[in-house]
Amino acid sequence: MGYQILPLTRLIEHFERLPGIGKKSAQRLAYHVLNMPREKAEDFARCILDAREKIHRCAVCQNLTDVEKCPICSDETRDGTTICVVESPQDVQAFERTREYNGVYHVLHGLISPMNGIGPDQLYIKELLKRIQAGGVSEVIMATNPTVEGEATAMYLSRLLKPLGVRVTRLAYGIPVGGNLEYADEVTLYRALEGRSEI
Amino acid sequence: MGYQILPLTRLIEHFERLPGIGKKSAQRLAYHVLNMPREKAEDFARCILDAREKIHRCAVCQNLTDVEKCPICSDETRDGTTICVVESPQDVQAFERTREYNGVYHVLHGLISPMNGIGPDQLYIKELLKRIQAGGVSEVIMATNPTVEGEATAMYLSRLLKPLGVRVTRLAYGIPVGGNLEYADEVTLYRALEGRSEI
Repeated sequence: MGYQILPLTRLIEHFERLPGIGKKSAQRLAYHVLNMPREKAEDFARCILDAREKIHRCAVCQNLTDVEKCPICSDETRDGTTICVVESPQDVQAFERTREYNGVYHVLHGLISPMNGIGPDQLYIKELLKRIQAGGVSEVIMATNPTVEGEATAMYLSRLLKPLGVRVTRLAYGIPVGGNLEYADEVTLYRALEGRSEI
Repeated sequence: MGYQILPLTRLIEHFERLPGIGKKSAQRLAYHVLNMPREKAEDFARCILDAREKIHRCAVCQNLTDVEKCPICSDETRDGTTICVVESPQDVQAFERTREYNGVYHVLHGLISPMNGIGPDQLYIKELLKRIQAGGVSEVIMATNPTVEGEATAMYLSRLLKPLGVRVTRLAYGIPVGGNLEYADEVTLYRALEGRSEI
């Protein structure tokens, strides 16, 4: 609008690109940053860089971590014979909140979705196969969201894994169909885990 | 929850402290940052620092700018005899959007609010007095929000300025009482500017 303050405009643009942030919110956030104490703003900027630089996928389960092998995969008290396959790191957190699951995880980082051009090759399926071929795994729990993509991915994986001699199970439909795992409450999620059935 | 990724947790905390961002949104934003291309994340961090470092108050009108004297104060085509007094830089932008006001501004950076412990000394009132004492100003338009604090600030300032021999006016009540200047549409704002009256 005639007189623009470039550093402010650019910051507003960055906030606007974040998911769920509109034009008005982006402005409010940018002005908030201007009024932050200098150290707070510096720390905020550093945290963005740190998160982007230091966090990567665990060499085993592909969950996000800031160490080579994530704390869950390194934990010797956890049952390495059961692998719970999920779509995203947020889903791992949801299961950890139940405090009832003692196996390990495998994070696919997505679901098969032909509509969005995402095929099996874009997911971390090869890494899952490698873990099972290495032996010591007796059960794989398909814990993808109960949506079309989640079901399709679970079916695809179960066909791929069964020939390898592992038991493949699916979360029980305690979770509401069409819903989102990340928002399920602890009890529902635990029931779904208990009532899992062979596919 | 047992296994935390420190850089991620800290980034989530930063987002949570922003206005209007809840726990769930903060998580979503942080995960979004993790998935950003590296250059995007670096640019985002740099923009936060840049905005905080390069933007300061204009030496004359106290509006935010990245140069010594803001483009509005430096613009010789603008009418320096009329000063529009506003609460915040966002209000200046709202007036500029009308494209009808050709005077200059003075940004108070707040309103008198005894409830929140904000007195006249915490606002940029001394700087306004200095501009008027320097001469060449014939009218001061009180364009604070039509709220209790906005009215109180306008009254306080008008009593302070009238003895200096300037005409002090107030925006017409074309703007809805109790509303917020920043969200007024251009036409309403222009009507309010046209119908201003002496106080």
